[in-house]
Amino acid sequence: MFRARVYVTLKPTVNDPQGLTIRGGLHSLGFESVEDVRAGKYLEITLEGDDKASAEKQVTEMCQKLLANPVIEDFRFELRET
Amino acid sequence: MFRARVYVTLKPTVNDPQGLTIRGGLHSLGFESVEDVRAGKYLEITLEGDDKASAEKQVTEMCQKLLANPVIEDFRFELRET
Repeated sequence: MFRARVYVTLKPTVNDPQGLTIRGGLHSLGFESVEDVRAGKYLEITLEGDDKASAEKQVTEMCQKLLANPVIEDFRFELRET
Repeated sequence: MFRARVYVTLKPTVNDPQGLTIRGGLHSLGFESVEDVRAGKYLEITLEGDDKASAEKQVTEMCQKLLANPVIEDFRFELRET
């Protein structure tokens, strides 16, 4: 069994209204020191697999096909055997 | 300047319809090896601060007050000086 921690983030050039809203909220709460907020997705995926290489290939494909939108998002992940 | 990477996840006992939907989507795409998916939020926060201890305190407060719902969510973060 493998556990993948997947991070999906907007590409740096893409506008991030959700992050801007969170920054505004933090400023309103008195956290004036906040310069920038970027919002992304975090997924924990448990999957069966024979070896790490094939699990890695599977997770890469999942990200490319469903979890991230390659036009506007980047992804990275960590894979650990459990 | 500090960069905080904040991970907000649902508590293990909380139902996660978003994760279940993603798992269903992955199964439909042929990724039958996926056992479980848990969906969370990932935030990158850039903030000014004098020292790491005070930045850490600030980010903890942000999580408690705005970024996570303490009733159903857990949070953790990594802080790095940039």
